[in-house]
Amino acid sequence: MVTYQSLYDFCVEMFVKMGCNEVDAALASEVLISADLRGIDSHGVARLSGYIRLWESDRINPTPDIRIVHETPGTATVDGDRGLGLVVAPKAMDIAIKKATATGTGWVAVKNSNHFGIAGYHAMMALQHDMVGISMTNASPLVAPTFSKERMLGTNPIAMAVPANEEPPYVADFATTTAANGKLEILQRLNKKTPAGWVQDKEGNSSTDPHELKAGGALLPLGSDREHGSHKGYCLGSMVDIFSAVFSGANYGPWAPPFVSFLPLPEDPVGDGLGHFLGAMRIDAFRPAQDFKNHMDNWIRRFRKAEPSAGHEKVLIPGDPEREMEIQRKTEGIPLDKQVHEDLLVLQKKFGLKTALS
Amino acid sequence: MVTYQSLYDFCVEMFVKMGCNEVDAALASEVLISADLRGIDSHGVARLSGYIRLWESDRINPTPDIRIVHETPGTATVDGDRGLGLVVAPKAMDIAIKKATATGTGWVAVKNSNHFGIAGYHAMMALQHDMVGISMTNASPLVAPTFSKERMLGTNPIAMAVPANEEPPYVADFATTTAANGKLEILQRLNKKTPAGWVQDKEGNSSTDPHELKAGGALLPLGSDREHGSHKGYCLGSMVDIFSAVFSGANYGPWAPPFVSFLPLPEDPVGDGLGHFLGAMRIDAFRPAQDFKNHMDNWIRRFRKAEPSAGHEKVLIPGDPEREMEIQRKTEGIPLDKQVHEDLLVLQKKFGLKTALS
Repeated sequence: MVTYQSLYDFCVEMFVKMGCNEVDAALASEVLISADLRGIDSHGVARLSGYIRLWESDRINPTPDIRIVHETPGTATVDGDRGLGLVVAPKAMDIAIKKATATGTGWVAVKNSNHFGIAGYHAMMALQHDMVGISMTNASPLVAPTFSKERMLGTNPIAMAVPANEEPPYVADFATTTAANGKLEILQRLNKKTPAGWVQDKEGNSSTDPHELKAGGALLPLGSDREHGSHKGYCLGSMVDIFSAVFSGANYGPWAPPFVSFLPLPEDPVGDGLGHFLGAMRIDAFRPAQDFKNHMDNWIRRFRKAEPSAGHEKVLIPGDPEREMEIQRKTEGIPLDKQVHEDLLVLQKKFGLKTALS
Repeated sequence: MVTYQSLYDFCVEMFVKMGCNEVDAALASEVLISADLRGIDSHGVARLSGYIRLWESDRINPTPDIRIVHETPGTATVDGDRGLGLVVAPKAMDIAIKKATATGTGWVAVKNSNHFGIAGYHAMMALQHDMVGISMTNASPLVAPTFSKERMLGTNPIAMAVPANEEPPYVADFATTTAANGKLEILQRLNKKTPAGWVQDKEGNSSTDPHELKAGGALLPLGSDREHGSHKGYCLGSMVDIFSAVFSGANYGPWAPPFVSFLPLPEDPVGDGLGHFLGAMRIDAFRPAQDFKNHMDNWIRRFRKAEPSAGHEKVLIPGDPEREMEIQRKTEGIPLDKQVHEDLLVLQKKFGLKTALS
């Protein structure tokens, strides 16, 4: 267990060592650790050493010139200049928010970026402006479309944050696969079987072996199989891919660059880096803000008191579990997986970091 | 089997009898029968008698004053004045397209409307303008969120249409449930079991009896159960509900008005009628249109030639099966379910329609 503050200071120092300026290092650390705070451990400091390896392979530029390359009053396309997605995405979201202030909604497609942490962070940036926030990204190809044995899409998450009045905001943030890769990794470490419908083997046959993914198999789109709507999960994942990469000019589908530095980049790229898509929508662009927020309160309260089915305590509102986790971990500290802790100590030694994890 | 033309003429005559003007009757018929052409039989003329019953119960206004009640340069909220969704939604989409022309993207929330046919029709309106089209609607509550035994959401579909260059467009159009209600109705008629994961009984237990829905059970969100990601399907369905009804001022969640006239309207409405949400995004708001379309061609070709898994012939592009069906049915005619055909003959007699179905 470590404190938020020590983990934050550790990351800032590491990102500065990487060559980021102080402001970017602080932003990247805040975005990264928001995952650990919210209980999405797979997307937090567990990935720090991965980012470092990508930087060491010259796939991440610590001093990017992030700039708008195309725009209209309500839209922009941003070139991330191979920067950390943790820095590029929030800056792109700032642009979306400014565009929304002017025209009602703002939409920014990003190319030439890298992994951006949890999608939810960027979507939630809109909340303080009384806007709905939307965030999505494409990712390393690990997912087979319905009827495919080839991996063509990433786990391509979608996040949406909606402000309420007295109630906390509605925050949905999910991979468009049946199971997120992080959940599979847990079962790989424990050598346990997966439920049916999470993965297939390299021939496209249904499997319950979590190691199949590394043996050429694939994660399955939300819905698992055709009979249970996997074609809808494939639609969702491909919509995210088109928004994030075809709109922006990034690499799409199987050309999306891998997150891990030991896999080579595709030899025939169709665009620049990874892509994101960020949106901000003023709630008062549709009705008076107070009306909207009062009705969101009512929406949330009605769904929260929906009658639970046998064996379940209550119906959850998207964002409830993560918010409760954040409150707990901010006060009690953040538990670190043993392997993750060791990885951080390796970084500490290698780069001579002064921050103690405590 | 009947011809497209006779079915179209039949619907136009019926909508005129209902009190629609010629232009609206033609539009409503085109939208309605686009479902039959595309093979989504549950959403086409099969619903005509249902619309008539709603009109007879004074829940549909055949001469609506469809107007903008709130707007910004890039957004609008439209009051459908209890009109046919088949007429209100395309008019709202026209507004979204105009807004997009001005600011890059256009977004229209609609309240006080009714069932709008297939979501795909409205999204595809954007294609001829070199825009991506988005369309969604909330609907009668038939779906239980994860852990709920109460029906809180509709099957809340999402459609997205994306233009390509030489390739036909990408068109996704799907309910945010594991199985669409239309598929359940087929099994009800045949008295056959459903696959596990489509429905639950009124206590919230998993069931394979398609009749459970009418006995107080519920359809399940895409993902079927928690272990297979039903919380993500619940997020999707609720996102559509918030976009369509909280943005617009329509009835949301369990307050959404039922499609069938024999069920009473909720006594404590939280808004006006049913809600839709329509979006248009200029592709040249993000990059030159020709670049975008060339890359969509490449996206479509690469996915179409993804290696199929054992037992499957090929990987489909969203919209492929419906487009092939449309070509076939436009030339060979549209098959009518026996019950649907009889329902149309009842309407013909009751309203003295002169068009022969042939």
